[in-house]
Amino acid sequence: MFWKNFFKDTYLLSKACKDTNQGKKDPSLLTRLFYKGKKIKIFLSNHKIFNWQDLEFLCHSVGWECPPFKKIQIGIANSFMVVSLFQEVLGTLKLIGFARVTSDKVFNAIIWDLAVHPEFQGKGLGKILIYQIIQQLRREDIITIALFADSQVTKFYLKLGFIQDPEDIKGMFFYSNSDEYSSYI
Amino acid sequence: MFWKNFFKDTYLLSKACKDTNQGKKDPSLLTRLFYKGKKIKIFLSNHKIFNWQDLEFLCHSVGWECPPFKKIQIGIANSFMVVSLFQEVLGTLKLIGFARVTSDKVFNAIIWDLAVHPEFQGKGLGKILIYQIIQQLRREDIITIALFADSQVTKFYLKLGFIQDPEDIKGMFFYSNSDEYSSYI
Repeated sequence: MFWKNFFKDTYLLSKACKDTNQGKKDPSLLTRLFYKGKKIKIFLSNHKIFNWQDLEFLCHSVGWECPPFKKIQIGIANSFMVVSLFQEVLGTLKLIGFARVTSDKVFNAIIWDLAVHPEFQGKGLGKILIYQIIQQLRREDIITIALFADSQVTKFYLKLGFIQDPEDIKGMFFYSNSDEYSSYI
Repeated sequence: MFWKNFFKDTYLLSKACKDTNQGKKDPSLLTRLFYKGKKIKIFLSNHKIFNWQDLEFLCHSVGWECPPFKKIQIGIANSFMVVSLFQEVLGTLKLIGFARVTSDKVFNAIIWDLAVHPEFQGKGLGKILIYQIIQQLRREDIITIALFADSQVTKFYLKLGFIQDPEDIKGMFFYSNSDEYSSYI
């Protein structure tokens, strides 16, 4: 119901997800939504070039420690896909959402660092970012899409069709800077 | 105990893991082990160029369906790291172990497709492959190393220092070719 009302005079969500980024200019108008009593434009981009302050602002807004800019540059440059959402403010675009993907470009892809500015959370923008990624990966014939989700957000991904530990496959981590590292190597 | 006996007249495992691939030629002699009553040489390589039949042979030996060569080529070309083990047979090298890594080259890396030919399983070669990857990623300052493990092999990775679902982080998958796909998008 929420979606029906939310998008009734703009795009349908499914249409918004399907129509963007197929030969359109980048950034492209994705949708319009109400924010602080006004209807604002939300733009979608696959560009890998960011304003450092924009990224830092978004990082801090969701409580993440922002890595050094040089590291972020390397991480983004070596991401297979970057999807960002921008709010139009007085003719300029302000970053409000972000996610990126690493991939071998053929078999599998991992989604990392999904972030939506708190003022825009609960408006379906995280869902749009994920579906944009899925659509774009599908066009590249990459079928297996994975991510690592904090326990607070597994429900969000389950609703989007993600499966937790399918066929009992477990996500496992090795932290090579941990104190215990030397006892293993 | 097993390790102590196994490596007593060759390398110590820890030494084998630490010494290779630091300015040495590729493929480099990793260790020697007993196989069918003879002491054979095991070589390690980071090359991305493979004999297709070797890879197919290894795939089938571990019960994997082998993807088309063209797809494997793309997957390997876009892997950040490939680590292979070879047995020396009459002066030629025969592929007996393989693993690859995708990465953003700065923050995180995912290990995929660890395979050791069944005749060489239980001899610590899987462990060597994983430690080689960890060592090489560590040299690149990549601290977070992850993988998705079948339930049958989680114990193997736990012994190597991997943590399952750390801080309740869950591995989640989306299969965009599944029947249910259209109901989500």
